[in-house]
Amino acid sequence: MNQQTTKDKTFAVVGTGVIGNGWIARFLANGHDVIAFDPAGGAEERTRKAVELAWPSLEKIGLAEGASVDRLTFVPTIEEAVAKADLIQENVPEREELKKSVLTSIDQHAKPEAIIGSSTSGIMPSRLQEGLKHPERLIVAHPFNPVYILPLVELVGGKATTQAVIDEASNIYASIQMKPLVIRKEIEGHLADRLMEALWREALHLVNDGVATTEEVDAAIIYGAGLRWAQMGPFLTFHLAGGNQGMRHMLEQFGPALKQPWTKLIAPELTDELKEKVIEGCESHAGDASVSELERKRNEFLVKVLDLVEDYWPETKSIAK
Amino acid sequence: MNQQTTKDKTFAVVGTGVIGNGWIARFLANGHDVIAFDPAGGAEERTRKAVELAWPSLEKIGLAEGASVDRLTFVPTIEEAVAKADLIQENVPEREELKKSVLTSIDQHAKPEAIIGSSTSGIMPSRLQEGLKHPERLIVAHPFNPVYILPLVELVGGKATTQAVIDEASNIYASIQMKPLVIRKEIEGHLADRLMEALWREALHLVNDGVATTEEVDAAIIYGAGLRWAQMGPFLTFHLAGGNQGMRHMLEQFGPALKQPWTKLIAPELTDELKEKVIEGCESHAGDASVSELERKRNEFLVKVLDLVEDYWPETKSIAK
Repeated sequence: MNQQTTKDKTFAVVGTGVIGNGWIARFLANGHDVIAFDPAGGAEERTRKAVELAWPSLEKIGLAEGASVDRLTFVPTIEEAVAKADLIQENVPEREELKKSVLTSIDQHAKPEAIIGSSTSGIMPSRLQEGLKHPERLIVAHPFNPVYILPLVELVGGKATTQAVIDEASNIYASIQMKPLVIRKEIEGHLADRLMEALWREALHLVNDGVATTEEVDAAIIYGAGLRWAQMGPFLTFHLAGGNQGMRHMLEQFGPALKQPWTKLIAPELTDELKEKVIEGCESHAGDASVSELERKRNEFLVKVLDLVEDYWPETKSIAK
Repeated sequence: MNQQTTKDKTFAVVGTGVIGNGWIARFLANGHDVIAFDPAGGAEERTRKAVELAWPSLEKIGLAEGASVDRLTFVPTIEEAVAKADLIQENVPEREELKKSVLTSIDQHAKPEAIIGSSTSGIMPSRLQEGLKHPERLIVAHPFNPVYILPLVELVGGKATTQAVIDEASNIYASIQMKPLVIRKEIEGHLADRLMEALWREALHLVNDGVATTEEVDAAIIYGAGLRWAQMGPFLTFHLAGGNQGMRHMLEQFGPALKQPWTKLIAPELTDELKEKVIEGCESHAGDASVSELERKRNEFLVKVLDLVEDYWPETKSIAK
């Protein structure tokens, strides 16, 4: 499916907290009709306020033709919300029984060919599919806050999800300017949240042990690794730390640190097989680009992003002047 | 000490690998004389090449008055390198016995009031101080690659390091456009590397378990959390995920996830004391800024940094089109 054919699709959003509202703003900005449902009192007012606050950023990113906040309709029941929708995005609180009951209701009232995307940050899709009439069209589509700006969406199929649904979901989310990352195996926390959660748990340990304040942890990330991760993630970043030999040299030099008590997290054994997976992964990702070409790009990026950090973030008090 | 008084300081660099060369480029760009020593054949040539590659970025950041690559001198012995230096930066390979023997030699030949900064990424300064004549002037000053661009330097004093040395080191590194973060307790891996290593180990587990390729891990970070971490680190990022109530609400909503098998890393118990530390840390860091003010700044930053990511990073193949 290309942007042409997704143009007239209708999107339904069930559950309008921070994440649901983020989806609504993104769908609207991409020129779609959105039908929303949330049983909480005052939900519509909060959503309209949230969309208004998001809109200036969306205008800067660029609105699709016909995009308008007026194309949002709130309805009083799930049935009405999902009846005409081509894609239904579920964002109710992260409790498995609640999600299952809401998804069952969505499944009953949606068109059979509609896709149901769940925003769950951790529950495996196979569990959410249990008991549905049309489990094949349920997929985890996990976004990141703020949903209307951050492009990543993790797509995770369950045992019943068909490849056709994964492909179509990929196309739909890509058509609203997202980066769909199809995850190979369903595990709790999918992929990104496992990584984030590892960092978060280590950070909590450090605060708990009195090693650092929350502000110091933030400063340690912002001015060090954070700037690099924003551009190339942890693996390619380390590929550049190994000199011209890249990851191959890096693993020789810093592989032994995996045995050291540098975090509360026990490392996997650095077997030859794992080494090769990591080295080949980085080399294939880098493609024709040599380490020094990557370094040049990295440097240009970092110089510009550092300027942005200075403009948009006040000096933290943790940093000595 | 202010920039005035650090202006005529001489910097020595012992060990000229990727990190040592990064220091040299930064010292030179800030208008200092640098004396370097490395026993490896061809070291001087490699360093001059590395400085040349770094220079265009340093010009964009802005060179200090009098800054010149010609102010770098290579000498054939440690003695000559350190004799006149006010700050000596040690960057030999990460093996404790080697570091200790080089530091002993530096300590013997340096002026007693010179500060010795070790770039060690993991060894505690109290161990490096053992056996020095003047252990009080040794401090860990751990930078991040590329050292000539990334501003973070972790300063860690050992048992013998005096507060005066920590303060002076802070001033010196700040005078060369760095962000010195003084670490409260010495632990293996200091602060930033513990955080980075937790993420790295989880990433290795995911690759090892066949959940993702290295490229998919990188994509999951870049387009999701990485962009946010670059601006505000993990804690303040989550402060903004909690709606108007910030971290207080966030811990209520996502605190229970700490009990779930979302990473290989076991979380600390989320006691009331830890909760309050985290909430108060975020609230004090945010200061007068409300969550919605922070969101506005975050959005402006993210829109701009996303543009940069598009300009400087080719589409990863992991992302569905």
